[in-house]
Amino acid sequence: MNKCLLIALWIFLLQYFHVGNCVVAAQWRKVKRRGDPPAMCGYDSCPSGKPGMVNVHIIAHTHNDVGWLKTVDQYYYGSRGNIQIAGVQYILDSVVDALMEDESRRFIYVETAFFWRWWLQQDDQMHHTVHRLVKEGRLEFISGGWSMNDEAVTHYSSIIDNFAWGLRKLNDTFGLCGRPKVGWQIDPFGHSREQAAIFAMLGFDGAFLGRIDQQDKDTRAAEKTMEMVWEGSDSLGQAADLFTGILPNVYWPPATFCFDLLCGEQPIMDDPRLSDYNVDERVDTFIQVVQNQTKMYATNNLVITMGNDFNYQQANVWFKNMDKLFKYVNARQANGSNINLFYSTPSCYLKALNQANVSWPVKNDDFLPYASGAHTYWTGFFSSRPAFKRMEREASSFLAQCKQIDALAGLGPQDQHEVAQLREAVGVAQHHDAITGTERQHVADDYARQLAEGIGECQDVVADGINKLSKVSSPIQYQFCDLLNISQCHVTENLGQTTIVLWNSLSRTVNHYVRLPVKDGDYSVTGAGNSDVPVQITPLPKELLTIPGRISAATHELTFRAKLPPVGFATYLIKKVSKSRPKKYNRGRVLQRTARSDYLQNEDVVVQNEFLSLAFDQATGALKSLTNLESKDSIAISQSFGYYIGSVGDNSKEELRAAGAYISRPNCSDGCWKELKSNGSYEVVKGALGQEVRQYINPWISQVIRLHTTSKHVNFEWQVGPIPIGDDVGKEIISRFSTSMKTGEEFWTDSNGRQNIRRVRNFRSTFKINITEPVASNYYPVVDRLFVRDNGQKTQLTILTDRAQGGASLNEGQVELMVHRRLLVDDWLGVSEPLNEVGLGQGLVIRGTHRLILAKIDKSAARYRALSQASYWHPTILFTAVTTQESRLEALKQSSVS
Amino acid sequence: MNKCLLIALWIFLLQYFHVGNCVVAAQWRKVKRRGDPPAMCGYDSCPSGKPGMVNVHIIAHTHNDVGWLKTVDQYYYGSRGNIQIAGVQYILDSVVDALMEDESRRFIYVETAFFWRWWLQQDDQMHHTVHRLVKEGRLEFISGGWSMNDEAVTHYSSIIDNFAWGLRKLNDTFGLCGRPKVGWQIDPFGHSREQAAIFAMLGFDGAFLGRIDQQDKDTRAAEKTMEMVWEGSDSLGQAADLFTGILPNVYWPPATFCFDLLCGEQPIMDDPRLSDYNVDERVDTFIQVVQNQTKMYATNNLVITMGNDFNYQQANVWFKNMDKLFKYVNARQANGSNINLFYSTPSCYLKALNQANVSWPVKNDDFLPYASGAHTYWTGFFSSRPAFKRMEREASSFLAQCKQIDALAGLGPQDQHEVAQLREAVGVAQHHDAITGTERQHVADDYARQLAEGIGECQDVVADGINKLSKVSSPIQYQFCDLLNISQCHVTENLGQTTIVLWNSLSRTVNHYVRLPVKDGDYSVTGAGNSDVPVQITPLPKELLTIPGRISAATHELTFRAKLPPVGFATYLIKKVSKSRPKKYNRGRVLQRTARSDYLQNEDVVVQNEFLSLAFDQATGALKSLTNLESKDSIAISQSFGYYIGSVGDNSKEELRAAGAYISRPNCSDGCWKELKSNGSYEVVKGALGQEVRQYINPWISQVIRLHTTSKHVNFEWQVGPIPIGDDVGKEIISRFSTSMKTGEEFWTDSNGRQNIRRVRNFRSTFKINITEPVASNYYPVVDRLFVRDNGQKTQLTILTDRAQGGASLNEGQVELMVHRRLLVDDWLGVSEPLNEVGLGQGLVIRGTHRLILAKIDKSAARYRALSQASYWHPTILFTAVTTQESRLEALKQSSVS
Repeated sequence: MNKCLLIALWIFLLQYFHVGNCVVAAQWRKVKRRGDPPAMCGYDSCPSGKPGMVNVHIIAHTHNDVGWLKTVDQYYYGSRGNIQIAGVQYILDSVVDALMEDESRRFIYVETAFFWRWWLQQDDQMHHTVHRLVKEGRLEFISGGWSMNDEAVTHYSSIIDNFAWGLRKLNDTFGLCGRPKVGWQIDPFGHSREQAAIFAMLGFDGAFLGRIDQQDKDTRAAEKTMEMVWEGSDSLGQAADLFTGILPNVYWPPATFCFDLLCGEQPIMDDPRLSDYNVDERVDTFIQVVQNQTKMYATNNLVITMGNDFNYQQANVWFKNMDKLFKYVNARQANGSNINLFYSTPSCYLKALNQANVSWPVKNDDFLPYASGAHTYWTGFFSSRPAFKRMEREASSFLAQCKQIDALAGLGPQDQHEVAQLREAVGVAQHHDAITGTERQHVADDYARQLAEGIGECQDVVADGINKLSKVSSPIQYQFCDLLNISQCHVTENLGQTTIVLWNSLSRTVNHYVRLPVKDGDYSVTGAGNSDVPVQITPLPKELLTIPGRISAATHELTFRAKLPPVGFATYLIKKVSKSRPKKYNRGRVLQRTARSDYLQNEDVVVQNEFLSLAFDQATGALKSLTNLESKDSIAISQSFGYYIGSVGDNSKEELRAAGAYISRPNCSDGCWKELKSNGSYEVVKGALGQEVRQYINPWISQVIRLHTTSKHVNFEWQVGPIPIGDDVGKEIISRFSTSMKTGEEFWTDSNGRQNIRRVRNFRSTFKINITEPVASNYYPVVDRLFVRDNGQKTQLTILTDRAQGGASLNEGQVELMVHRRLLVDDWLGVSEPLNEVGLGQGLVIRGTHRLILAKIDKSAARYRALSQASYWHPTILFTAVTTQESRLEALKQSSVS
Repeated sequence: MNKCLLIALWIFLLQYFHVGNCVVAAQWRKVKRRGDPPAMCGYDSCPSGKPGMVNVHIIAHTHNDVGWLKTVDQYYYGSRGNIQIAGVQYILDSVVDALMEDESRRFIYVETAFFWRWWLQQDDQMHHTVHRLVKEGRLEFISGGWSMNDEAVTHYSSIIDNFAWGLRKLNDTFGLCGRPKVGWQIDPFGHSREQAAIFAMLGFDGAFLGRIDQQDKDTRAAEKTMEMVWEGSDSLGQAADLFTGILPNVYWPPATFCFDLLCGEQPIMDDPRLSDYNVDERVDTFIQVVQNQTKMYATNNLVITMGNDFNYQQANVWFKNMDKLFKYVNARQANGSNINLFYSTPSCYLKALNQANVSWPVKNDDFLPYASGAHTYWTGFFSSRPAFKRMEREASSFLAQCKQIDALAGLGPQDQHEVAQLREAVGVAQHHDAITGTERQHVADDYARQLAEGIGECQDVVADGINKLSKVSSPIQYQFCDLLNISQCHVTENLGQTTIVLWNSLSRTVNHYVRLPVKDGDYSVTGAGNSDVPVQITPLPKELLTIPGRISAATHELTFRAKLPPVGFATYLIKKVSKSRPKKYNRGRVLQRTARSDYLQNEDVVVQNEFLSLAFDQATGALKSLTNLESKDSIAISQSFGYYIGSVGDNSKEELRAAGAYISRPNCSDGCWKELKSNGSYEVVKGALGQEVRQYINPWISQVIRLHTTSKHVNFEWQVGPIPIGDDVGKEIISRFSTSMKTGEEFWTDSNGRQNIRRVRNFRSTFKINITEPVASNYYPVVDRLFVRDNGQKTQLTILTDRAQGGASLNEGQVELMVHRRLLVDDWLGVSEPLNEVGLGQGLVIRGTHRLILAKIDKSAARYRALSQASYWHPTILFTAVTTQESRLEALKQSSVS
């Protein structure tokens, strides 16, 4: 590994952890505080409870979605009040005012994306005031990510980026006193174990969660196990342990105690002359809330959240009434009450728990999926808005490469600013109403805009960086093709010749099959050392040619295999050549089903290379079997598309819950699974670089099952949509693989793309589940992979996804992934729009890839890990119209960073 | 006039005017400022505009209804947010905060009822802060009444009481700097001339109005006569002149510029990186607003109101965005714009107008009725909630007597506190959604509760005062009968004997017919000097016996004529006597229609005394003629009841406007007037003290036409209700008098019970009216009286009401009064309830009195004035169960204050 590579890795890791405090925890199963900041802020500023009393830590907080029903900008400024009266600028304005009015008041703030925007608009005096509040622990930053990320459908690298950027701003501005000590994931729809591990590695001392399965919560409340130590990692040991508390009432105030201006609930009316005087009733009711809560928690310290979405726009209303509530409840102490209310923060509550010195139960699985009711399984969002989920992944991957190139090339402050735009857009996209697909359509459009603009900025950075790294005498103008996913690229489809640069961000050599859209014709590709590279020209699958919005002259695809150095780039010259010069050229042959000459009647269609072989039924083109030619393992396997009907209902009660952006609830009144039979039309394409079967299932579903010549996995490249709704039925589209494997009831899914968690059908490891939704309750988020094992055969079938999807194994030997959703009613959880994505006048068409690996169990991890990384951080391609031999050669000199 | 009387009068007048500044204005028709306070506040603290520019005075204000959709308490505390998110405590909290943030910001506050409640809850530090803001002119009290009173249906004495109490609080607390200089009647539904006179006499320098007839406003806008000098009095001359301005947009901000948190309109988004950046558009739009307004007003100073109902609960939102608006609009001055925005107040605007030194047009009628659209005549509220309108009058009258007795007896601070309760309740009742009847039902109930409690407190004061004034050795326990209007009184209806005390608050001797409910039997009344007083016992009219809610053993009424000293009291001993002792006793004889013996067939039934004679048709009991026996003037006159059908509609456009609490809009598709024919059933009752005809019109309307033996007027005592709605038709019930008088198109109505204003059918004196609503547009408020004249005969027919009612003269010789309303749909002006008053499961029954005077024109004023005063400030009766001769005699010693 050369010096530059070391620097790159150092920078790469540094940004993830520079704000964290990777202290290895001592041997404990108790709350342990890590690396306290010095006096004057942090734990030392915490209020003390009263000995012998029930000390109720009141947490004044607001939850500010970084986009949901309105865009981030709209929420910040408070525009579009017709949608929601919510303006974050006013929250921060008024909270500071209210905190300044009384030293005992405290407030926590979470979302750095909003805080930072506000901070930049404040003057010196306000900066001074806020510094003082932070230093005195009266305003405490908590969690501190750029957004409050979702945990189910986010990739660990994006989560870390989200925290890295938010925490860096806080650290740079406030130093130790601004450093969050506690994770605050109060609204995400379920919780991943990887998030706990990341929190622990960030140096957090604990985390508080709002939403866990209702049955789980009921069990924990009854057993006083709402608080626990969570083992965040299979491998990191206690360094990844995290104290974790479940909040009593999600993150809301107790019923009837929402004092926000917009809540419209009863204030404390303490003028005894009034007919509306209500102090006695309010105090009685609150004391009852506290007493009920003592039955659920293990210590004499309780936590009560006083806040809600976009609360505290008029912070005075909240604080004024809480002040009165505290006064009158605590006044009862004179008459023997043992209840003591005071303003506190989650960290101060944690400190009190720590001092209580009790032992906590241990947890080592995750809190997924989340169900808030018998028929309200929040498993639909695992697959909602599949196009945006894919776009985010492209952006996240490109951000890593952008930061890498920026750091390696040592670009200046302007490029830092441009990198920041993509950092922020990716941070925003991790929000639990962004990547989840649970935002309104215009907000989803805005998220996509932010990502697109961030990508555009980072393309400039990457181009600058490559120019600098390649030491060209004058900068080359690079171009990018953002629509390669639909085989559209203005550079290659009108090709005379181009030099392309491929950046490999992985720290190992990568062989990458480059596929570029071109017009029919003959092309040459020249690589390092002027070597000719084999190419294959193949007609595009016909569904691509008619994809809505595609504007391209390309009818064919040029494929070649590029060999890329570790953390470096390679360049290739691609040239259109006359037909008379077919040097090293190979045309992929399309074998129509009717072209009998190409295969024998009644024989299977076989697609294979030296590692794998797939057999297809000749009559229908349906997959029949998959064989690992190295290990000789072979399984019967079929793949089919089907759908679930989304339940409809007015959501007035659990039985009438509709499927929507959040919720999956297959209508199983006539059997859950509706198979989409193939019409049996297919093509076989074979060439020097790969073989594939193209299945034309129906007018809106097609799939290419492709095996590259040197690959040890099979790609299933599906295209689904527009999902027809002419029958007024909302549908969830599934790709299901059924095999002969003896998998029992087990399967595994990844946790944020890092480690795996074992799943068992109709079972939860920490509570007894009553199965009310046979399909939805067995769905889990698949960020990166899902696999099943045949322990007898010692085989493992692994499927890698190219974005987050819901996945399940509903029957032995079977796995399925939900690839697309289109629903016609809202599920009444706030978004108030049906999840019915349309573009260009019709439902969205989604293209994606499932990568299958069949291997021995003990060899699978190494294989899917490498494939997953190579897929996630796939090479970035820079195109140039430079045609002079000189500059091309000049660029080729620098084919890798060294 | 004795010394005590002088003191009493002095106190009586002092309270009305002690805060005013009765400077006699000089000869001018220009804005003139009266009695400026010294420097440091008031006009001297006003911001200066820029010479040569259009100086736009931005008025930051909130309008806080003292009850409307919620009660006063609910508005103050902000409870019942489900009805309306409005909490006045938060407004004042946050306005003070926002004012402290920037010295250039200004705010005005109007309703002292709310301010005072807030003030009492603040600590010393806040008192200090508010004193500073007031002293520096940054917080300016404006108008300053306890509530912002209605002008159409209020009595001048109540208006003065409302201002006296609010202004006293401000004066006592803030001195000169807290003294309002300008009237601010921005929401009342039309404007009376008497209000202008009162404002002038209070020392105000001007007034600003929000709502005037749309046709009037259009005319004024076109002619630049939106601002004027209003001559407030026929008799007071320039002392009652008042500069008056019509605000450009009621009291609202320009369209799309409501920056209140709850408005949901676009804030100023000035981050140029945002896709939502809107500064250019916002500035362009506001400049257009200003330019349009320059066409309507006479000077280079403009006023723009930035506020609305219950705005500024989060004042920061308003001020932050206005700050930005000012910054960006004024920045255009660098590019040649002549528009200059700044925070100002109405007084500062007035000062600028004064300095502009222009002459203003003069107005001398009033701004009634108010129409906001072709079919939206706000004339229904003149009669809405007739029971509450009557109750308010009782309370107002009793308040005057309570204050009078309190002052004369020199009671201590505790009694002051009790008087204050009725002062405040009466002040609140003057609010333009209280006495108007345009509040929600539960709010009307609360207003009634406040009045009832206030009356109860003042009853204690009156009892204490009479005890002190009568110098009894030990205090007598007095009782009160609040339900004499339905002939219910627990004291007299179970009478052995009682001493009653009657207080006369007028400064002259009054002869008063006392009518008390009793059981059948014989009674004696003994007055001063042990004199026997003639009595009359009469069976109650039968409709009274079945009135809903009446719980009384009384079947008869005892009448006697009491003679009361000026500003003093008389006592009478009333005793049940055995039938064998009918000394000076006279039983009223009920002459059934069938009792032929009492009158000749085909002859009219005549009711008369030495002054008046009324003839009734013998067959139907219908009134036929009225003769003044002194002047020998006789008119043919009939009286009948009828109704208008309330229009229904969805209010989506003018043509679909419904009649409701605010709006009268008779459905005239089948003729407007629907006569309620009498079924011809009637009784005649004659006795020594009076004669009467009892008309039983239909099952829900009856009327007693009563002539007391010594009276120069006739009482029409009507009982109307429950208005039947079984036909699903909402109705407005009218009592109509049709005479032979040649009245032309003229009639007169009073202005707040003081002076009279001439009305002409289908005509307005200041603008050309297009008649779109033939009935509603000719209705005017009758607070005290309405009269018509026959100039040929020199006769005048005057009708006095016992509460405010709508009245009109739709045909020559005819006058009518709207006595009751019951409507089934809402008129969509905010109250969101149909005006459908029910009690005890059915529509309300209303009892009231019209007093008719027929006299020569030149004798009428003296007569109706005396009658009006004697009716308004009728004697208060205190009952006692004291039976001993001693205490009775002791009390009798003090039969008048001397």
